Amino acid sequence: MKIYAGYGTPPQLKGLVRDLRAVWALEEIGADYEIHWLNLIEGEQRTDAARKIHPFGKVPAMVDGDLTLFESGAICQYIANKHGALGGPATSPQWPEVTQWCFAALDTVAPRLFDHFIWQNFRTDNPICAEVSKDAKEVAQLRFDVLEGVLESKDFLVGDEFTIADILMASAIRNAMFPDIIGDHPNIRRYLDSIFARPAFQRAFELNIKGPAEAA
Amino acid sequence: MKIYAGYGTPPQLKGLVRDLRAVWALEEIGADYEIHWLNLIEGEQRTDAARKIHPFGKVPAMVDGDLTLFESGAICQYIANKHGALGGPATSPQWPEVTQWCFAALDTVAPRLFDHFIWQNFRTDNPICAEVSKDAKEVAQLRFDVLEGVLESKDFLVGDEFTIADILMASAIRNAMFPDIIGDHPNIRRYLDSIFARPAFQRAFELNIKGPAEAA
Repeated sequence: MKIYAGYGTPPQLKGLVRDLRAVWALEEIGADYEIHWLNLIEGEQRTDAARKIHPFGKVPAMVDGDLTLFESGAICQYIANKHGALGGPATSPQWPEVTQWCFAALDTVAPRLFDHFIWQNFRTDNPICAEVSKDAKEVAQLRFDVLEGVLESKDFLVGDEFTIADILMASAIRNAMFPDIIGDHPNIRRYLDSIFARPAFQRAFELNIKGPAEAA
Repeated sequence: MKIYAGYGTPPQLKGLVRDLRAVWALEEIGADYEIHWLNLIEGEQRTDAARKIHPFGKVPAMVDGDLTLFESGAICQYIANKHGALGGPATSPQWPEVTQWCFAALDTVAPRLFDHFIWQNFRTDNPICAEVSKDAKEVAQLRFDVLEGVLESKDFLVGDEFTIADILMASAIRNAMFPDIIGDHPNIRRYLDSIFARPAFQRAFELNIKGPAEAA
């Protein structure tokens, strides 16, 4: 399996590019994979060749035999289903709940956290930054208030098992850490501390930061 | 199967509430279902009872036997997998590509279209509305430029089959129609015209607009 991943990003994005999610899943499983690196600053993800793999000109994308796939959520679902791990396969009883938290991470929790991160890191000189950030932070707090209850006495989102839903949720919440807008939500902080301490995350994170020079 | 759906929304939201996606999928299949209506304007979706079904206090949610599920993307995947229709089941060869376009709709295409819709319909008196809308529209055009190529000579996103990916993508793009920011993208307009002409969409749309009074 080949993962298309990016390097050359500004320091603020280190460890936040979405290819980390796919690599993390593969590291959790111990699956074989190789990385096709794209220099994001030079726009290699938007060349005609790259857009044949990912038409939106982003990362990650995946090639496994004849199958080409993009979108981190879909790639994580594919990996879990193929390997029967991380909440998969798709025929297992817990799978609907796994997919629920995958979409909750990307469709309900992530958007305003991502907005806040982007504006606070790349657009502070824009006159509307303060107002956009305030709005994003308010919605983020509503989402965190709900998650705080969900994670009461729980280590993972679905049952007692670390799944791709945790990969996607924790990755989404990383956008709320720079600057930190998680606020007074100890269950969320405990959850993140535990998840980001996983060796597979650490390996994926290192790779995400170091890029192809160290990976070679 | 029971779908938790909303009514009582302002006129601008008619036909755009996300429960429409779940009802549309069930109408395409001809599956039996009932609707549990929640008055969104009165906040019935945010009561303690409703949050036991959907902790984020939103619609749609679904109950099927012992299973409770929220997130429109997850519910659509569940319905397609359960019925082996609309791109499912999850064991079929095209399923990874179906999931790819589900996430592309909700995670890549939808966010800025939704932002533009919300600001243009509910926040025009906010002094930053023009700037936020301009930014959202610019990103939306980039997404539409890619989709325009994807839909060249194609009626559906995945193969020759109408799938849940089309339900989610067309539902996402509806947010770009009020006001219309689709621009000069004839393939996208042809795609939407064809999809919104489907009888199952029409039935779901009518139900979404009329709410419980007519559904009784």
